[in-house]
Amino acid sequence: MENTASRRTRPAKPALTREWIVEETVRIMREEGFEKATMRRVAARLDTGAASLYVYFPNNAELHAAALDQMLSTATSAETGWWRDRLDTLLDNYAEVLFALPGLARSAVVVRPLGPNSIRVYDQLLGLLIEGGADPGPAAWGVNLLLQYVTATAAEHSSTAPKEMYSDRDPQREFAGLARAIADADSATAPNLARHGQLAYTGTPRQRMQWAISVIVEGIRATATPGTETGR
Amino acid sequence: MENTASRRTRPAKPALTREWIVEETVRIMREEGFEKATMRRVAARLDTGAASLYVYFPNNAELHAAALDQMLSTATSAETGWWRDRLDTLLDNYAEVLFALPGLARSAVVVRPLGPNSIRVYDQLLGLLIEGGADPGPAAWGVNLLLQYVTATAAEHSSTAPKEMYSDRDPQREFAGLARAIADADSATAPNLARHGQLAYTGTPRQRMQWAISVIVEGIRATATPGTETGR
Repeated sequence: MENTASRRTRPAKPALTREWIVEETVRIMREEGFEKATMRRVAARLDTGAASLYVYFPNNAELHAAALDQMLSTATSAETGWWRDRLDTLLDNYAEVLFALPGLARSAVVVRPLGPNSIRVYDQLLGLLIEGGADPGPAAWGVNLLLQYVTATAAEHSSTAPKEMYSDRDPQREFAGLARAIADADSATAPNLARHGQLAYTGTPRQRMQWAISVIVEGIRATATPGTETGR
Repeated sequence: MENTASRRTRPAKPALTREWIVEETVRIMREEGFEKATMRRVAARLDTGAASLYVYFPNNAELHAAALDQMLSTATSAETGWWRDRLDTLLDNYAEVLFALPGLARSAVVVRPLGPNSIRVYDQLLGLLIEGGADPGPAAWGVNLLLQYVTATAAEHSSTAPKEMYSDRDPQREFAGLARAIADADSATAPNLARHGQLAYTGTPRQRMQWAISVIVEGIRATATPGTETGR
């Protein structure tokens, strides 16, 4: 369709590959910040036009899903040991990737990672839940629920970029305001908070995360998906 | 400190109140889109300077927390009935507020609503979990976990604004890509997905949300918080 002969006379330029695009995207995210890694910026760094990238990725969302996947290469669990310890390790490693790069977790709430590393994580998590006694149906739905919890928690704690809407937020002030509102709850209008609200903000972030993962895992093991009779 | 007499000779301008600022913020979110409701824009619509707003709100995050709270006036549950039905209604109403305004749910993942309506929601949810048999400690932690699930799910499904990074994303294409990757999982490298992956994307969004809420509620009732002996 096009005159490839004339191209061949130009100085050699490495052929654009999917892997190369993803690697460059990850590099920009790490060096310049997550929000800089747009199709346009990646194309510029690769000395090509955005149109060349569209052959591989139709939009920022799918480019980032692939970049996220690339970064999840470290998210894995031991091959042996108690299923629950291996599940905790896997989720810890997953969380660590998201916490490492501000913006990444907030992106992952919307765009799910997709590629060989994500598939491996989904597969390991599914296997561990089944090993732990969950039926396959709840286990298959539960993979999403666990990863969504980890992602949303990382997003809550991630910082924002200078040009973003919440760049000047003060999470400690927000937290203090929330804790004060709960401590000051009126026993007439908020009787449960007035009585038990002091329990809401106990524990360390790590204790809270471990508790939440236990809650979700216990719930998955105890709750059948619709249309199945097992699990309850 | 300042010459108020000269001000009084100007045409009368209604005094700025917290309520008025919040109402204007909600109006801008609804009429112009969530991401337009910055301190600067709100100040302009109120015919004042951003500095006047800082007396009440130090940043966009806290302004939005108050606007979110205002919109949660419809999030409530019936006074009587089975605790679980009332809990489902409350969470449904909460989700409905988030789904109604694109951008709001993604914001709420980061910035928690704060004000009288949020306090009422937290109080009702805490009371319902305790009524359902949860110990106060797990119930107090569980309020956050349930609202985080609803918020993250709404964020996943919310559309993006024209100037945002993922404005050209195609969620159906992403979903199809993910479903295909799971269906094509290799039994050598992803044995669990190859065997059970077809269960991952069954059910309707509503069935999945109801199942997830059951999972979290069952887990809260079964999982003690650290330092307590009850609940298990």
